[in-house]
Amino acid sequence: HNITNYVVMNTTANALLAIGASPVMAHAIEEVEEMVAMAGALVMNIGTLSDKWVESMFSAAREAKKRNIPIILDPVGAGATRYRTETARKLIKTVSPSIIRGNASEIMALAPGKGAGTKGVDSTALSHTAIDTASDLNKTHGSVICVSGETDYIIDSDMIIKIKNGHPMMSRVTGLGCTASALCGAFAAVNSNYAMAVAQAMAVMGIAGEIAAETAAGPGSMQIALLDTLYRLTKSDIENRLRI
Amino acid sequence: HNITNYVVMNTTANALLAIGASPVMAHAIEEVEEMVAMAGALVMNIGTLSDKWVESMFSAAREAKKRNIPIILDPVGAGATRYRTETARKLIKTVSPSIIRGNASEIMALAPGKGAGTKGVDSTALSHTAIDTASDLNKTHGSVICVSGETDYIIDSDMIIKIKNGHPMMSRVTGLGCTASALCGAFAAVNSNYAMAVAQAMAVMGIAGEIAAETAAGPGSMQIALLDTLYRLTKSDIENRLRI
Amino acid sequence: HNITNYVVMNTTANALLAIGASPVMAHAIEEVEEMVAMAGALVMNIGTLSDKWVESMFSAAREAKKRNIPIILDPVGAGATRYRTETARKLIKTVSPSIIRGNASEIMALAPGKGAGTKGVDSTALSHTAIDTASDLNKTHGSVICVSGETDYIIDSDMIIKIKNGHPMMSRVTGLGCTASALCGAFAAVNSNYAMAVAQAMAVMGIAGEIAAETAAGPGSMQIALLDTLYRLTKSDIENRLRI
Repeated sequence: HNITNYVVMNTTANALLAIGASPVMAHAIEEVEEMVAMAGALVMNIGTLSDKWVESMFSAAREAKKRNIPIILDPVGAGATRYRTETARKLIKTVSPSIIRGNASEIMALAPGKGAGTKGVDSTALSHTAIDTASDLNKTHGSVICVSGETDYIIDSDMIIKIKNGHPMMSRVTGLGCTASALCGAFAAVNSNYAMAVAQAMAVMGIAGEIAAETAAGPGSMQIALLDTLYRLTKSDIENRLRI
Repeated sequence: HNITNYVVMNTTANALLAIGASPVMAHAIEEVEEMVAMAGALVMNIGTLSDKWVESMFSAAREAKKRNIPIILDPVGAGATRYRTETARKLIKTVSPSIIRGNASEIMALAPGKGAGTKGVDSTALSHTAIDTASDLNKTHGSVICVSGETDYIIDSDMIIKIKNGHPMMSRVTGLGCTASALCGAFAAVNSNYAMAVAQAMAVMGIAGEIAAETAAGPGSMQIALLDTLYRLTKSDIENRLRI
Repeated sequence: HNITNYVVMNTTANALLAIGASPVMAHAIEEVEEMVAMAGALVMNIGTLSDKWVESMFSAAREAKKRNIPIILDPVGAGATRYRTETARKLIKTVSPSIIRGNASEIMALAPGKGAGTKGVDSTALSHTAIDTASDLNKTHGSVICVSGETDYIIDSDMIIKIKNGHPMMSRVTGLGCTASALCGAFAAVNSNYAMAVAQAMAVMGIAGEIAAETAAGPGSMQIALLDTLYRLTKSDIENRLRI
């Protein structure tokens, strides 16, 4: 169950279908509790947030929490505006998401009293600089934190998993971070070890990106090839390419 | 004139342009009456419904009814939540749509007092099990009902048309059911025999899916090839492949 | 900073990323002032307007005006409904956009007391017939006006620039006019000569369309090839193909 932004709804749904998941997009306050009750995971993404949507996120998240359904938060653009930063912090404080995935700027903005410059929704900081904040968030809320970037850092308890898969052209396709968060949801729906679920989702995303980039003539065909690759990805693709 | 969901707006508009139709998306209560008055058909899709959008659907549908403009309803996710089921039923009761297209779960959920388990927006029932409900809906409201699936059933009066075109990979691309409903609208805009319009739309959709699947490497390229095929489809493609 | 319609958000963001810009989509009244303050340009598109979004457009536009950030208006469907026509006119009157880009029907609808028949969002008039209105708008508001079509007319003071690049298949892909407006924003962000910025954006768009059409099998692959081409476009592509 995705409550996500307008920009990526189509590509997110397609990525989830490609890996064999069963996505639903629903945001009305009238139905989110009922919808999330049927879901394997709830993915919340504040990329094009507004008041009604935020209200529904809280409603869906409380229901998911009550039912022990994993909650994934993608704090898109946290740090860019007070509204995004405060909404993300309040969601975290209220429901302690199982997983939070963002770029370094976004993760750093989640620490009360801290905050880094973010230019719109693209990160201006390097992933590793956000590790301290990620570790604090993990200690306070128990959330597995993924700081994504050239290297993805997955932080849980005293463990850091680094995933070094991916391709530079991925940053030229809109919403691949959002897709990664949605995949985290799909993997968490079937793996209660959320740190492993996130590591697997980020590895699949990065490896699919590498394979897609081999044939892509640019970001348009990259977006399409990525969906095809997610659909066709094999165990040996993953074993041969995983850099963990 | 489409009042449809966020996930499929781009692909729906592109499919309609590909076949030579002239799509418009507009949902504001301030303009839907005026917009629908210019349209050849009104397509309403509740895939990401919310209160304001539902209000506009009623307003547009009443105006379309008054002007004898065909109304197509796609009850996405009916049966999954009460909000979807009740909204769909109320729309049907109020305006008796010319055409209703859904998967078997969705159609079964439209019968008052009945209702089938739906997992999100994907059908969990076989098409033929929904035929009785479809027949009841047709008798009560005069709507042509299309229960889509591996076989598409088009029910009108005492006639059932079966279309057996299509390809399994179509279910891995988000919103192709929504596209089918939009094509029903385009065909109904130029053919007042709505059962035939639906049969033709579903055949075109299924045949285009078959042709697209021949070259698609996965669901990403499938989505693109489908648009190309809709644009290039010839009379002989249809004659050679039609399974009716 | 784009406040644009649901249909084109994904493709607009991708086109902007492809040319190396850094797009953000944000529409909540709570954050648009803060977001636009960081932006190089504000692009407003009324393709799927509604009351809250229009309110946010005014708020963002006033802030952009105050900060001397270029404002681009795409009056999608002006002339089709009173709501669109009046919203576009009121935005123009209130903030005198730096750039207005529309098809001939849309531009003609912006002249108070005039107005041309528009069928939905597709133009029914030839570009050159809108030149008088464009010239009036330019004189009254100082806005650079682009009337796009087979030939694009860019009107500023006593100058008319004509760009004759482009390909007929571009009209079969949804939202390429919206993409053109977004590119105008990206170019205006780095070129304070707005007439030149618009001419360059329209030339890039038209040339990329021509190159994309050479390999596209239809409108689906056209949409993808256009993004790839925007990403790969070279100075010599432009020099060799520019028809100005």
